[in-house]
Amino acid sequence: MKFVRFADEQHPNGVYGLVESGEVHVLRGHLFEPPEKTGETLSESSITRYLPPVDPPNILAFGVNYRDHAGETGSKVPEQPLLFLKATSALIAHGDNIVIPQAAPQCVDYEAELVVVMGKRARNVSADEALGYVFGYACGHDVTARDCQRGDGQWARAKSFDTFAPVGPYVVTGLDPAALRVQMRLNGAVMQDQPVADMIFSVPCLISYLSQGMTLLPGTLIYTGTPSGVGVGRTPPVFLKPGDVCEVAIDGIGVLRNIVVAS
Amino acid sequence: MKFVRFADEQHPNGVYGLVESGEVHVLRGHLFEPPEKTGETLSESSITRYLPPVDPPNILAFGVNYRDHAGETGSKVPEQPLLFLKATSALIAHGDNIVIPQAAPQCVDYEAELVVVMGKRARNVSADEALGYVFGYACGHDVTARDCQRGDGQWARAKSFDTFAPVGPYVVTGLDPAALRVQMRLNGAVMQDQPVADMIFSVPCLISYLSQGMTLLPGTLIYTGTPSGVGVGRTPPVFLKPGDVCEVAIDGIGVLRNIVVAS
Repeated sequence: MKFVRFADEQHPNGVYGLVESGEVHVLRGHLFEPPEKTGETLSESSITRYLPPVDPPNILAFGVNYRDHAGETGSKVPEQPLLFLKATSALIAHGDNIVIPQAAPQCVDYEAELVVVMGKRARNVSADEALGYVFGYACGHDVTARDCQRGDGQWARAKSFDTFAPVGPYVVTGLDPAALRVQMRLNGAVMQDQPVADMIFSVPCLISYLSQGMTLLPGTLIYTGTPSGVGVGRTPPVFLKPGDVCEVAIDGIGVLRNIVVAS
Repeated sequence: MKFVRFADEQHPNGVYGLVESGEVHVLRGHLFEPPEKTGETLSESSITRYLPPVDPPNILAFGVNYRDHAGETGSKVPEQPLLFLKATSALIAHGDNIVIPQAAPQCVDYEAELVVVMGKRARNVSADEALGYVFGYACGHDVTARDCQRGDGQWARAKSFDTFAPVGPYVVTGLDPAALRVQMRLNGAVMQDQPVADMIFSVPCLISYLSQGMTLLPGTLIYTGTPSGVGVGRTPPVFLKPGDVCEVAIDGIGVLRNIVVAS
């Protein structure tokens, strides 16, 4: 099933919808309750304001989780998953603008990622059972200020500026994450394009690893790492500038589109 | 004013109280609304279950913010504040147990800290105006698994295990943070004891710095760094073990007490 969250005149605080053949069935209640249709429907093309699919208690993220990306950034391949966090205040929806921060305008880079949306409280779960705790999957963009990332050493600030965590527009359930393919298109040009199966640590491994000593609450977002092809790894480097159109595309999920603007 | 949050039979979901001379005046509504007494009072000694003072949207934290602590851990003194994040799922209250994680049981260390509780949405604020966005101050404990911290390089996991973010029991308003002194007592022995004035970057500087490009939402917790005297810097090192009693004491705020247990 394919869910979307949006706001309009009838639902100024936002509402969930179930997308079926371009038609949106408005739902009652939260995403994690069994979805119940209100009977109200609308055309998906009439949605003008998308909202982030959840209000996450935490945004967890993994670095260097595709071998080729480790190579292009000069990082060593990690022996275990490499966790970092993004501030929840950085979250934006499909269609919202990515704002180049005044504090770090020069080296803002794109990172297309598959994002896991946790559905059930998970603690000390095995890789075998991990996917049973997932609600669904979304397109995510782990926007990163490379100069802060290098200068700070810790990645929190570089990845937590306002608008640096676009997610959406859809959350899709019932997928096999290993069968997906993650693509970044910058102004229409394909910059990243790699199967999720190329991950160093698979989605079940990441969830199991995190859950050892850390409770994953429902609604937690997990950015699973970015494929090769980021801007900083290119010659010359490619960094985001006002007017750029970023699209994270994952077949079977959808396209997350955000335009870059100056602050 | 000194605020506390607790749960009891009458208030199973928790309630705020204003502490005056050992008496707790039960309050209506949230901490950030103008506090209104319900008329109900109780003795502070009758509170058996404290709650974290807020449900933070993010827990922001600074590393290496006291010069002596930089020395003892072999870190270089940073040229600008060094941000990292703690997962909100790690939050616990005064009186809750700190659980040694099975995934990293060997090198769990204490870090006493002054914690800032943001009261108003702050973005691009100057150091001069920064304290006007603060609601109050609390005692905090930045529990850290040193082996993960070193091994991962990124500090997120080492500082985000469940129970690794004790905060409370009080939030106190109207203080001058620069006049405070932060102490850690481990089983009664003073392990850390240093004035906040020794910080490399002052509280107003930290807030102003963060707010450049990052919106600080009401309820955000900011751990401001730990003084010298942590366990890893001692010969031989001192790490937390089941039965240990940790107390973060800040004169003018109170004492945050948590007992360490095995998982």
